[in-house]
This record gives sequence, C-alpha cells and structure tokens, in this order.
Amino acid sequence: MSKFAKRSKKAGLPPGTLVHIGKKRSEKTRIRLINYDESSFLEKETEATEEYCAAKAATGITWVNIDGIHQIDLLQRIGDCFGLHPLVLEDIMNTDQRPKMEDFGDYVYIVLKMLTLNDRGEITAEQVSLILGKNFVLSFREQNSAIFDPVVERIKSGKGFVRKAGADYLAYALLDAVVDHYFVVLEKREEEIDDLEEDVIANATPSTLQRIHKLRRELIFLRKAIFPFRNVISALERGESAFFDQSSRIYLRDIYDHTIHIIDTLETFRDLATGLLDIYLSSVSNRMNAVMRVLTVIATIFMPLTFLAGVYGMNFKHMPELEWTWGYPAILLLMAAVGISMQVYFRKKKWL
Amino acid sequence: MSKFAKRSKKAGLPPGTLVHIGKKRSEKTRIRLINYDESSFLEKETEATEEYCAAKAATGITWVNIDGIHQIDLLQRIGDCFGLHPLVLEDIMNTDQRPKMEDFGDYVYIVLKMLTLNDRGEITAEQVSLILGKNFVLSFREQNSAIFDPVVERIKSGKGFVRKAGADYLAYALLDAVVDHYFVVLEKREEEIDDLEEDVIANATPSTLQRIHKLRRELIFLRKAIFPFRNVISALERGESAFFDQSSRIYLRDIYDHTIHIIDTLETFRDLATGLLDIYLSSVSNRMNAVMRVLTVIATIFMPLTFLAGVYGMNFKHMPELEWTWGYPAILLLMAAVGISMQVYFRKKKWL
Amino acid sequence: MSKFAKRSKKAGLPPGTLVHIGKKRSEKTRIRLINYDESSFLEKETEATEEYCAAKAATGITWVNIDGIHQIDLLQRIGDCFGLHPLVLEDIMNTDQRPKMEDFGDYVYIVLKMLTLNDRGEITAEQVSLILGKNFVLSFREQNSAIFDPVVERIKSGKGFVRKAGADYLAYALLDAVVDHYFVVLEKREEEIDDLEEDVIANATPSTLQRIHKLRRELIFLRKAIFPFRNVISALERGESAFFDQSSRIYLRDIYDHTIHIIDTLETFRDLATGLLDIYLSSVSNRMNAVMRVLTVIATIFMPLTFLAGVYGMNFKHMPELEWTWGYPAILLLMAAVGISMQVYFRKKKWL
Amino acid sequence: MSKFAKRSKKAGLPPGTLVHIGKKRSEKTRIRLINYDESSFLEKETEATEEYCAAKAATGITWVNIDGIHQIDLLQRIGDCFGLHPLVLEDIMNTDQRPKMEDFGDYVYIVLKMLTLNDRGEITAEQVSLILGKNFVLSFREQNSAIFDPVVERIKSGKGFVRKAGADYLAYALLDAVVDHYFVVLEKREEEIDDLEEDVIANATPSTLQRIHKLRRELIFLRKAIFPFRNVISALERGESAFFDQSSRIYLRDIYDHTIHIIDTLETFRDLATGLLDIYLSSVSNRMNAVMRVLTVIATIFMPLTFLAGVYGMNFKHMPELEWTWGYPAILLLMAAVGISMQVYFRKKKWL
Amino acid sequence: MSKFAKRSKKAGLPPGTLVHIGKKRSEKTRIRLINYDESSFLEKETEATEEYCAAKAATGITWVNIDGIHQIDLLQRIGDCFGLHPLVLEDIMNTDQRPKMEDFGDYVYIVLKMLTLNDRGEITAEQVSLILGKNFVLSFREQNSAIFDPVVERIKSGKGFVRKAGADYLAYALLDAVVDHYFVVLEKREEEIDDLEEDVIANATPSTLQRIHKLRRELIFLRKAIFPFRNVISALERGESAFFDQSSRIYLRDIYDHTIHIIDTLETFRDLATGLLDIYLSSVSNRMNAVMRVLTVIATIFMPLTFLAGVYGMNFKHMPELEWTWGYPAILLLMAAVGISMQVYFRKKKWL
Ligand SMILES: [Mg+2]
Ligand SMILES: [Mg+2]
Ligand SMILES: [Mg+2]
Ligand SMILES: [Mg+2]
Ligand SMILES: [Mg+2]
Ligand SMILES: [Mg+2]
Ligand SMILES: [Mg+2]
Ligand SMILES: [Mg+2]
Ligand SMILES: [Mg+2]
Ligand SMILES: [Mg+2]
Ligand SMILES: [Mg+2]
Ligand SMILES: [Mg+2]
Ligand SMILES: [Mg+2]
Ligand SMILES: [Mg+2]
Ligand SMILES: [Mg+2]
Ligand SMILES: [Mg+2]
Ligand SMILES: [Mg+2]
Ligand SMILES: [Mg+2]
Ligand SMILES: [Mg+2]
Ligand SMILES: [Mg+2]
Ligand SMILES: [Mg+2]
Ligand SMILES: [Mg+2]
Ligand SMILES: [Mg+2]
Ligand SMILES: [Mg+2]
Ligand SMILES: [Mg+2]
Ligand SMILES: [Mg+2]
Ligand SMILES: [Mg+2]
Ligand SMILES: [Mg+2]
Ligand SMILES: [Mg+2]
Ligand SMILES: [Mg+2]
Ligand SMILES: [Mg+2]
Repeated sequence: MSKFAKRSKKAGLPPGTLVHIGKKRSEKTRIRLINYDESSFLEKETEATEEYCAAKAATGITWVNIDGIHQIDLLQRIGDCFGLHPLVLEDIMNTDQRPKMEDFGDYVYIVLKMLTLNDRGEITAEQVSLILGKNFVLSFREQNSAIFDPVVERIKSGKGFVRKAGADYLAYALLDAVVDHYFVVLEKREEEIDDLEEDVIANATPSTLQRIHKLRRELIFLRKAIFPFRNVISALERGESAFFDQSSRIYLRDIYDHTIHIIDTLETFRDLATGLLDIYLSSVSNRMNAVMRVLTVIATIFMPLTFLAGVYGMNFKHMPELEWTWGYPAILLLMAAVGISMQVYFRKKKWL
Repeated sequence: MSKFAKRSKKAGLPPGTLVHIGKKRSEKTRIRLINYDESSFLEKETEATEEYCAAKAATGITWVNIDGIHQIDLLQRIGDCFGLHPLVLEDIMNTDQRPKMEDFGDYVYIVLKMLTLNDRGEITAEQVSLILGKNFVLSFREQNSAIFDPVVERIKSGKGFVRKAGADYLAYALLDAVVDHYFVVLEKREEEIDDLEEDVIANATPSTLQRIHKLRRELIFLRKAIFPFRNVISALERGESAFFDQSSRIYLRDIYDHTIHIIDTLETFRDLATGLLDIYLSSVSNRMNAVMRVLTVIATIFMPLTFLAGVYGMNFKHMPELEWTWGYPAILLLMAAVGISMQVYFRKKKWL
Repeated sequence: MSKFAKRSKKAGLPPGTLVHIGKKRSEKTRIRLINYDESSFLEKETEATEEYCAAKAATGITWVNIDGIHQIDLLQRIGDCFGLHPLVLEDIMNTDQRPKMEDFGDYVYIVLKMLTLNDRGEITAEQVSLILGKNFVLSFREQNSAIFDPVVERIKSGKGFVRKAGADYLAYALLDAVVDHYFVVLEKREEEIDDLEEDVIANATPSTLQRIHKLRRELIFLRKAIFPFRNVISALERGESAFFDQSSRIYLRDIYDHTIHIIDTLETFRDLATGLLDIYLSSVSNRMNAVMRVLTVIATIFMPLTFLAGVYGMNFKHMPELEWTWGYPAILLLMAAVGISMQVYFRKKKWL
Repeated sequence: MSKFAKRSKKAGLPPGTLVHIGKKRSEKTRIRLINYDESSFLEKETEATEEYCAAKAATGITWVNIDGIHQIDLLQRIGDCFGLHPLVLEDIMNTDQRPKMEDFGDYVYIVLKMLTLNDRGEITAEQVSLILGKNFVLSFREQNSAIFDPVVERIKSGKGFVRKAGADYLAYALLDAVVDHYFVVLEKREEEIDDLEEDVIANATPSTLQRIHKLRRELIFLRKAIFPFRNVISALERGESAFFDQSSRIYLRDIYDHTIHIIDTLETFRDLATGLLDIYLSSVSNRMNAVMRVLTVIATIFMPLTFLAGVYGMNFKHMPELEWTWGYPAILLLMAAVGISMQVYFRKKKWL
Repeated sequence: MSKFAKRSKKAGLPPGTLVHIGKKRSEKTRIRLINYDESSFLEKETEATEEYCAAKAATGITWVNIDGIHQIDLLQRIGDCFGLHPLVLEDIMNTDQRPKMEDFGDYVYIVLKMLTLNDRGEITAEQVSLILGKNFVLSFREQNSAIFDPVVERIKSGKGFVRKAGADYLAYALLDAVVDHYFVVLEKREEEIDDLEEDVIANATPSTLQRIHKLRRELIFLRKAIFPFRNVISALERGESAFFDQSSRIYLRDIYDHTIHIIDTLETFRDLATGLLDIYLSSVSNRMNAVMRVLTVIATIFMPLTFLAGVYGMNFKHMPELEWTWGYPAILLLMAAVGISMQVYFRKKKWL
C-alpha cells in the first residue's frame, strides 16, 4: 500500500494554499465533459476553461471528470468558475485525506479512497473527490482509470435509470462504482488468506511470517481508508445533505449496506490474520520441538553406551571381564540391549 | 463454514441488476403456495405465475415459499407481480448479505442467515429473505430444507395461535423457526468445546490446535452472520416497521431475547476458545519441558561417569590405582555412588 | 458452574409451549403462601389451586413462593389464575434465561440468577423468576433454598419496614436477598485468587494452571449471569415500570449500587486472573530455565575434562608426558584447575 | 492496597441496618465542630450530641468532621439529628463503596476514596463521605489524617475565598484536598515505573517481575477507586445537584480536569506496565539464550576433539599413525586447528 | 518525551494559587505586542504593563504573545489587566494540562500541546495557552519558538485573509500553526517505523527491541497529548463558544479534519508498533532456533562416532577386529559412512 504522503511541507502556510501532496505525476491532466438529459447526450474532451464553465449553466446534467490533480493553475480555474471554497481545492490536491463529506450550501464535497490492484497484486489507494451541485457533478481522480467507464457507458447507451435521474443519482453511480471495486480487492486478499492458511500448517517458513505481517499491515491501511466512509455514506443517507433527494437515498442505503459489509469483512480478515499468526508461531515451535526431541533422544541413547565402552577401556590390571573369552560379544549384546530398551521406552513415552 | 461469495462480478453493473451470487445450484426452484384464514386452509405446489400473483388479492393470509433463488426470470416475475423494488430482488439473489430489514412502505424486507449442520457436522449458512406485506408473506430460501415444516404443520392443524393471527405473526413464526435452529447449532459446538477442553489437558496434539483454530474461525463467521440480526429484530420490536402490530411485538421481544442470548453465548465461546488456546500452548510446552528435563538429567548423570572411566583409561606409566587389586571394583562403586547421589539430588530438586 | 441447558429440544415448537429446560429434578414442588398487612400475618404451605388463586383478591399483600418449576400442569394452573402470558410461563420453566424485566401491564416479570456455593465450593447458578402485581408477588425458584428465609423472618417478626410497605418493597427485598448472596460467592473466589497468587510464585504446577483456567471459566459465566441484571435494575430504578413507586426506587438504587460494585469486582478479578496467568507462565519458564542452566553448566564442565582424559588415553608410541613420574598427578591437577576455573567463571557470570 | 472488605456478613439483613464493614479500628471517634462566617470563626472538639445538632440551626457555615465510622450508636445519633436516610448511614459505615453521589433533596451525599502512602510506600485507600446541606457539611473519614488540615488552616486564617463563600465551596475545598493527594500518590508510582524501566533492561530478575506484577495489581485497584469519581464530579459540575451554585461549579470543573488527568495518567501507567512486562520477558529470554548459546558452543567445540582423541585411543594392531615419531604433536596440532577454526566460524556467525 | 511535571507540590493549596509547574527555565519572559487592522500594522517588544493593557482598548485586533510562563508577578499583572480568572492563570502556569477549552463569558481559554523535535530527534511537548477575547488574543508559550513566525509574517505582509478577519481567525491561525507541526513530528516517526521494519527482519538485536519500546512509549505520550484536543476543536467547531463566528468555523472544521487524521495515524502507528514487536520476537526466536539446531545436529553426529571409537578402545583380550590388518581403515570408513548418512538424513529433514 502507498506510504503516507508528505504533509509537513504545508506547515505554516495559510489555509487554502494549493499544494499538491501525493505521488508525483507528470501526465497531463485530462478533462472529460459530459452533458446529458433524457433525450440528449454529449461527450467531449477539452481543456478550454470556458467550455466546462459554460457547462454549469447548461440545461441537463453536466459531469466534468478531471484525471490529474497536480496542476495548481488548472484546479484554481476550475475552482473559480464553479465557486469552490479554497479549503475544498486545497483538500482535492492533498491526497492524504480521510474520507469525509462537507456541505457548503452551493454544493456538497465528498472525498473517498479508490482501491485497485496493480500488476504485482499490491493494493493501490487513490483519492477520488466529488463535487455535487444542483445540476452538475465534478469528479477528481489522481490519474486516468477504468473504474468510471461502466457509468459513462450506461449514460451513453441510456441503459438503466441514470438518464432519467438527477445529478445526485450520477454522484451515487460514481460512489457505487468505487465501492464495488472494494469487493474486487477484498476477494484477492481472501484468496491470499486461504493460501496462507494452508502454508502455515503445511510448511511455515520465515517468509510465511513476512506474508502474514504484510497482510496485517495492509488490513490496517485498508481499515483506515474505508472505515470513515461509513459515516460519510450514513450521513448522506440520513439526508444531512439536501443535494440527495428522497428517491436517491434508497440507493445510498444500498452503498451503506456494501460499506458495512466490507468493514465487517475487514474485521473478519483481521481476526483471521491474528489466528494465522497464532498458528504460525505454534507451528514453528512444534517443528522445532520435534527436531530437538529426536536429536536429544539419539544423544541420550549413546550416552550410556559410550560410558560402557569407557568402562572397558580402563587400564586396571585386575578386570576379570576383559579376560573372558565371550567378554567382548557379551558387552556388545549388553550395549544393544540398553540401546534398544531405551528406544522402546522413548517410543512408549511418545518422545520419538 | 461456507466461503465468501464472489461479489466482484457485480462491479460496474447498474443497481438492481439481477445476478445470482452464491453456491451454484441446479435444482429446479420449488414454489409452495399456502392460503389460510381462521376457517380455511389451502396448500398447493405451483409454477404458474398467475396463481401466486392472484394470491396477493385473495382473502385470508397468503404465504408463498420459494426454494431456489438462482432463476433470474422467475424472480423477476415474482418481483413484478408483488411490486418489489429492483434493489430488493438484487439482494434476494445475492446470498452475501448482512442481516438487515428495510421498510419500503408497501412491504418490509427482512434478510437473515439460516444455520444448519451438514452430514460432517459442519455449519452451513444459507440466506433467508422474507417479504412481509399487508396480508402476504414471501419467503425465499437457497434450497428446500425442513426448517419451516413445523410452521406449515401448525397452520395446517390449526394448532397454536397462527390461524387466528395476521401475516405479521406468520413472519414472526418463520423468524422464530430460523432462530430456534441457532440453538441446535450452538449446542453442537458446545459439545466440541467440552471435548476439546478434555483433550487439551490430557493429550494435546497438533491436531488439537487445528480443531481449536477451526472452532475460532467458525465463531468469527457465526458472529458475522448473527450479530447484525440483533439490530434487525430490535428495530422491528421497537415498532420501526408498521407491518408488525402491537400484539405481535411481544413475540418479537421473545426472539430478541433469544438473539441476545445467542450472541452472549457466542462471546462466551470465543472467550473459552481463547482460554483453550492458552491451555494448549502451556500444555504442549509443559510436556516438552518434561521430556527435555528427564533427558538432560540422564545425560548429566553419565557425563561425570564417562569422565571417570576416561581418567582410568589414560595410559600414564605411573598410575598407582591401576595396580591395586581392588581398584576396578572400587571405581565401579565410586561410579555407582556418584550416579545414585546425582539422582537423589535431582529428585530432591524435583527435576526428575 | 452449571452447563448450558439444552434448548434445542424447543426448536420448531410454537411460542408459549411449556417445556422444562434445566437440571432434571424429581422433588415435589413446594408452594408457600404468605399474606400480610401492617397488623396481620398468615403463612401456609398448600397445593390447592383455589387457595392461592383466592389470595390474589385478598386484602393485604400476598406472596406465593413456588420452589420447583418442572411440573407443567401446576405452572399452567398458576399462570391461568394470575393471568400470566404464555411467553412468561415458558420463560419461567426455561432456566436458560438472561436476566431481564418485562412489563406486561398487569404485572412486571423479572428474571435473574441466584448464585450459591455447593459442598465442593463450586458456584451453582439457579434461576429466580419474580412476578410483581398490584398487591401480590410470585417467586419461582428451581428448588428450595435458604436465601429467602431472612425475608420471611422479617415479615413474620414485623422487623424493618416491610410490613408497612407495598408489594414492590417485598419484591425489592427478594431481589436484595439474591444480590446480597453474590457478595458471599465473590468473597470465596477472592480467597481463591489470593491463594493462587501465592502458589503461582512459590510452586507453580500444572494443577495451578488448571485452577487458573477454572477460575477464568467461572468468571466468564459469572459475568454472563450478572452483567445483564445491571440494565434490569437500572430500568426499574429509572421508573420504567410503574409497579415500583417513588419511595421504593431509592432502595432499588441501593441494589443498583451493589450490582455495579459486583460487576466492577468481576472485571477486577478478570484482570487479576489474566495477571496470574502471565506470572504462572513466567514462573514455569523461569524454573525450567534454572534447571536447564545448572544442568548445562555441569555438562560443560565435564566436556573439557573428558577431552583431556581422552588425549592421555591415546595410544601413540611417543607421548613423553605418559612417561613422566608426576604425569598422572599433574594431569589430575590440571583437570581440577580447569573444572574449578570454569565454575568460577560461571558463578561470576551468574549462570550457576 | 487494602483487600476487599467483607460484605458477606450483611447478606440477608434489612436495608439500612448499620454494620461497620472495613478495617477494624479501636480508636475513639473524634468529632471536630467548626462554625464560621465572613467575620467569625469557632473551632471545638466535642462529643456532646446536642452541640453539633444545634450547629445545624446556627448562623454561618457549620462543618462537622467525624474521624472514625465504626461506632454504630454515634453514627445513628448524628444521622438522626441531621435527618440522614438509613441507606446513607449504612453506606457511610461500609467502606467498600464505589465513589458515587446521591441527592436526597435535603442534602447531597458524596462518597469517594482518599489515597495515601504508608511508611512502606504502599498505597492505602480510605473512604471519605461528605454530606452537603444548605449551610452545613458533614465529613466522615475512617480515621484521623492530615489531609483536611490545609482547609482548616485556610478557614481559620481567612486566606482565600472560603470564608466569603457558602457550604458548597467548603465541600469543594475538601474534595479538592482529596484529589490533590492523588497526584502525590501517582508521582511515587511514576518513580517506581522509571526505576523498573532501568532494571528491566539492565538486570531483570524474578523480583523485577514481582514488582511489575504488584504495580499492575495496584493500577487495577487505583482504577477501580478513581474511575467512578469521574462521573460523580461531572454530574455535580453539570448541575445535577442544586446544592452547588453556579459560581462553585467553575471550581468543580477544575476538579473534573484533575480527575480526567489522573485517569489519563492511570491509563498511561497501565500501558507502560504492559510494555515493561513485554521487555522483561524478552530480556529474560535474551539472557537465557545468551547463556545457552555460549555453553552449547563450548560443548560443540569439544565434541570433535574428544572424538579425535577417541580414534587414537583405539586398540587396533595396525594403526600406522600411532607409530609415527611426530604422530602425537601432529594430532595435537590438528585438534588445535579444529578447535580454533570452529571458534572462528562461531564468532563469524555471531553465535559466540 | 518530557516527564510528568511534579504537581504534588500544589497539594493543599487553595485554588487559583499561582505555582509554576514544568521545566525550570531562567530566560527572561519575552512579550511581543502586535496590533493590526485592514490598513495598519504595529509590532513592538515591550515589558511595560501599561502598554499591553492599553492594547485591550485599542482599535483593531491586538495580539500579545508571551514567551515564558515562569514569572508569577508578570502573569499576575497580565491576568489583572485582561480580567482573567485565577483558575485560568493557575492553568497557564501549570504545564501539565490536558488540552481543553473553557468559555468564561468574556473570553475563551484554550490549552493544547505544541510538539517539536529537538536536536537528537526526540519529541518535545510544550504547552500553548490561548486566550481569545472580543478583539484580542493572548498566547502563552513556555519559551520562544519559530512556530508562530509564519503567522506574524502573514499579518505583516497582509498576505492571505488574516488582516481582514477578526481575532477568532487569528486564534484559528495559531491553532493551525501548532497542528501543522504535528504532521512534521509524525513523519519523522514514520521514517523510524520504516527503518525499524527493515531492521527487525534483517538484524534484530536487543537494541532494536529498545527502539521499539521507545517508539511505543512515545506513541502513548503522543496519544495523551493529542487525543483530548479532538474534543476541544470539535466543541469549537460546533459553536459551543460564541467567540468563533460562523465563517471561522469552516476553518476550525479544517483543523478538526487534521486532528482526526493525526489520531488515525497514531492508531495506525500503534498497530504497526505492535506488529513490529511480534516480528521482532519471532525473528529472535527463529535465529536462536537456527543456532541451536545446527549445533545440536553437529553434536548428534559425533555422538555415535565417539561411541564407535570407544568400543574399539576397550581392552578385551579377545576382540578379533583389532587383529585384522584392515580393521583400522574399515572402522574409519564405517565412521565416515555413519557421519555422512546422518548429515544426509538431517539435510533431507531440513534440520541442517
Ligand atoms: Mg497551515
Ligand atoms: Mg494517511
Ligand atoms: Mg454496488
Ligand atoms: Mg480509523
Ligand atoms: Mg443491495
Ligand atoms: Mg464486526
Ligand atoms: Mg478483531
Ligand atoms: Mg460473507
Ligand atoms: Mg454497481
Ligand atoms: Mg456480513
Ligand atoms: Mg423461539
Ligand atoms: Mg422467551
Ligand atoms: Mg469476549
Ligand atoms: Mg446459557
Ligand atoms: Mg419456537
Ligand atoms: Mg446470558
Ligand atoms: Mg443489599
Ligand atoms: Mg448502599
Ligand atoms: Mg478487564
Ligand atoms: Mg471493593
Ligand atoms: Mg440486605
Ligand atoms: Mg486541585
Ligand atoms: Mg470501577
Ligand atoms: Mg486548573
Ligand atoms: Mg490502555
Ligand atoms: Mg502529564
Ligand atoms: Mg488545591
Ligand atoms: Mg492528559
Ligand atoms: Mg493546517
Ligand atoms: Mg483541509
Ligand atoms: Mg490499536
């Protein structure tokens, strides 16, 4: 998972100062403008400020999707024409936000984390900011990604309810697209847990421990990224922002359901990971004990035998056994008897 | 317990899209239609949409029980004629729901988990959805099961209160049948805990650890399946849905009681399982220590003896003891003395 | 502590079906009828239904104490004449209840656990059900016990406030008698904890561990038996049931105090038990370490000595030392020097 | 810390029965009567009931401080003349109270714990009961102590605000004196923690463990003694009792601050103690490991050497090395080489 | 982190007694007086009481920053001319405060902790007290520091919103400056955690444990220093003090965000530190096990070999092998075979 962003560089700056905090990116910001109502649909990629500013006043619903939040001047221009508060712009550029929602009267500002898996199966968290106004939605992402594509497709094709509904339904659809992806990510981690569960019993190595540790670390970060969103969506569903009307709230309740479900699952994963660690530790110590036991048993069998050999290696003048014709075979038999009976004893005690 | 269902395949789909999420099943869906009032009783297995749709308008209480939720078109037809919201149909088909209740004005939707034990004594969780309307109840299960049979029997025989009461009482009776089965499942696990408690002290093996781990895992899942139902039933009991009238709520309180009791018991089981793990670990380490101790003591006794033998195995020209007539027996006696006194010492120190 | 009762046999039965759930008992149910007011007192043991039914209409306060809840027909008759709801009768017969209070308008139903110590010092939990009506109190216990005797005595002798007060004060006095006994039980466990604390340091054996485990198990069950009663008594004290009038509530506050105090103490015990386990484990491992250390030191001293003996046991033709007159005493001195200096070294390092 | 008091002897007694529960004491109860207003001050030690009873009706503020709560008749007389509820008297005599506050209309009853350090540095908890009426304060302590002396001094000398203020300010001053002493006690424990922290790293012995255990035990009891006072003082500050007027509540807020601070500190201490235990355990096991490692290394070096000696101690007829002139020195050199190279290997592996 | 301050010396003193509690300092107190409005700006360092007292009545916003709180008479004079309550002055001088806010009608008093890193990278906590009145702000710090400099700079240069806004905005800017520095401190600790994470796996030494312990200790103190500020800022943001008007509260919400974020991060750090400890312990025990295993294996290989040597060192008259010409090489070969096959066996079992 991504590291903490460096916020310290903002220390001492006045509030509302735009500073990009997050992964450095050099791609050009892409702005996609979509305008639609029940009968019309318009899509356009543009950089001209006037165009998307005009969109605010257009009929129908306007959706401006901005991929890239590292260009200060661009964000400033967008903020100016949509009348965004400097603190909102500041937060959009700062990718180290907790999920939250803030109603500014003219619009509501929602920020949450989008989770995706990269090529190496690692979880990447990117920040998504939504501005929902009367008839427009602004969405800000750190970079281009396929996650909103199905929503665009549904609008374009007129499938589903979206063309008939308001801007709040569009905002809902975007939130839903993000939350739906949480399931994708969690399912991958569940496979990892299943895999670990087998490994931890069959062949627990130090690398298994590292994988458990990595898993726990990820769960800590996932929890931090998702947990606060629960309150955001619950506040929206309870109607704390007037921008979502009654009929949309039934859909928000659906997202709320999903979010609670995901948090439940994260808790479960955490409990499972703790359990895995317990098993790992007992497993390693069981294996170590087995080794030590067998080795010690072997050593203990040879102790008395070596002692016997030592006795008959003594140089006393008068040691009658040494003179016996069958002394040597006798002592070999005795040694065998001792060795075997100790083995039998250890086996009976289940130490071997 | 069953694995997590694969929800990821729904990512990006519009809300209300019907996708079956859960264990794949090929049995045909069975629909049982029951209509009754104080004086009449009618039961019928049917597949004709008109029949159960007509039931909605019939006099008396109508109960339609659907066993099988994997046929999209069938569910769509039922949804249409009973006026169910697309999100409700979506949730009925998705077996990965948290227990919840949602009031849609025309009906209330309740979803919970049904727990049964399979042939190998494993706990199986299946999803039960209830739709309670003015004069009808729809119940959806993943497959046929005996759990509702006693309710059918009571209606048929006219025993108890059910024929005189409304649809809400029927819904209560179904919920009660499901919750009653939680006790059956928990009692089986309690026997397992008692059994483990003996094993963990008498003969703790790695397989004991695995059983403890499996138990803890199950408790985590049971908690997830049952805990949220507490809020569902408490909301119904407090009268958050008008579909349960005052006289039924006293019965809901009874279920609430049961649910709290079960959650208490789950907590207790979890604490017991944690205690079992502690005992297991000390037990294993105690046994290991005992082995190591006895073995080390044996080794330590032979150390000085072997040394003595070594001394009289040296080849010095002038070693007066070697010449003595009684040197050999004397040294044997000395060895016995050393060996015995060390044993006595170890026994006194309680190391042996 | 007693095991979980077998509730599973009730699965599928209609609500209000009377089934005795609890320890099997064969004693005959004893019914004691007491009627009193400021000037009169009447006590009688009876089985005639009419008698105690009549009591309901009598002047003064009527207290019917029923010892034994396993006779279905008897309980049914009592329920009929005092107008008890079937769910209440069901709960009275089911000893596996969480403490709770339910107001049914005509009476309030209170259920809690009575704790006593049996001959072997084990804690026994029995269920006590109270029905408080306008001018009567019904008390149901699993069997006869001395716990209510002081209350009977106080009524008989006219000592204290009870003869002047209403049925609510009588109910309070019975609850108080039960809660007072919690202190008796906890004090016994406190002595056990003190005892364990000494043992765990002075001589920690596996049986100490078992005692700690038993203690923790008991605390888990005690918590389950007592914790919910806190809410019961707090609801009564806040006046949620009109059956307790203002002047009685000051006494309920006293019980509330006691209950909180007991729960605090249980928490403390739990923390102490956890601490005991920690000490036990370190104690055992300390002792094991001491053993291993001394033994290993002994072994290590004899290693070099045996090696030396081995060197001079070699059969080389040309080993000048062997020819020396003082070779043998010299090597013995060397061995003594090595052995002693290693001992000194170990002692200095505090390993011995 | 003091043990639990024996409450069990009260089981079965009617409410309001006076029984002294606490440490047995034989000192005579001392009663100090103080009466003051802005211009006058009167102090007197007395045993005559009439005198302090008259005080209730006197002008100015009356403070009766009772040191000793074990004389039933005396407490009964005080209770009678100040009109105290029997339950209050009962609680005053029972030193096993949780901190609480109860408003009885004519007066408010406050009980809390006073903490002092005895000669051996152990924490002693004594119970302090305050009765605050319109113009009087009664304070009950288990025995005489210096804690209230500064307050007496301030009244006598007219320093500070106390002579101009009401009885509520006096009650505040007494509470403040008690809470101020909590800091004294905690600072001593903090020094102990600092001391332990050094010991645990430098020389962790079993006695260190015992000190950690004693500390944790004390923290458990301190928490139990102080935690509930937080709610007491917060209720008073919020104005739940009319006996404290608006201007005094600002001072109560100051005590509230102190209390929260102390609870924070207790929590911190608990976390530190847990940390100490972790360090202790790793420290002990680190030291043990070091011992075992060095010893095992020594043993392992002598194993091959002894084997070599054994080889050349064999009695085969044809062993050419034995005949060599330089055989003996050669083998000694070989042994030195083997011993030294193993040492080097172990040092490189950091095992030695 | 700094130690607890010695509060015990205040025990018994009347409330409002000024005592400096905190690190002893000898620097002279520096007082900086700033007065500004939209068009004017005045800055002055002064010690004359009249000057800053006059400031209270001046037009525009007055900010008096006092660096040094150890001079009782000076604080008393400031308190007198700004009408501060004795309890407030007492708290300002006592650096052992929990963050809190108290509204005294004429002004609101806010206290929080300022965190900085000293030269050795250790976290230092100093107390900052703010008094916000109608048109003035007093800020008290323990000593001079650069943290408020950017705010002074912004006022001087007229940059940002501050010159146009009221005293509440100035107070906000100071709080923001302090909270911004929390991020600086946390980022340093995050680097330490990353560093520890590598060490704990690659080379875990006792000093690693000490660093983990120090980290956990710091996190405990940081939590104590920051956690209560959450409620302070939330109360201000909700408008509990009238001194912050509506438009400023949007900025307080920004600080609230930061604070929650920091607390989240502290929680995360705590979880990570716990994880580090787990890894450390397994890592150490893994390494120890590896050592013990290799050593024991070596010892075990030589046991049977030494025994064999011992057998042929026996002095029996009739030992045919000793006479064989190839006896010696044969036995050497046998020894090699045994040694090698045991090695192979151990390697196959993965013990070597
Ligand atoms: Mg800033
Ligand atoms: Mg972050
Ligand atoms: Mg969705
Ligand atoms: Mg969080
Ligand atoms: Mg849904
Ligand atoms: Mg959960
Ligand atoms: Mg958890
Ligand atoms: Mg699931
Ligand atoms: Mg979707
Ligand atoms: Mg769930
Ligand atoms: Mg039931
Ligand atoms: Mg019931
Ligand atoms: Mg638990
Ligand atoms: Mg039970
Ligand atoms: Mg039933
Ligand atoms: Mg219970
Ligand atoms: Mg009592
Ligand atoms: Mg009391
Ligand atoms: Mg606890
Ligand atoms: Mg106590
Ligand atoms: Mg009593
Ligand atoms: Mg104070
Ligand atoms: Mg407490
Ligand atoms: Mg203060
Ligand atoms: Mg804590
Ligand atoms: Mg402090
Ligand atoms: Mg004071
Ligand atoms: Mg604090
Ligand atoms: Mg800031
Ligand atoms: Mg912000
Ligand atoms: Mg945590």
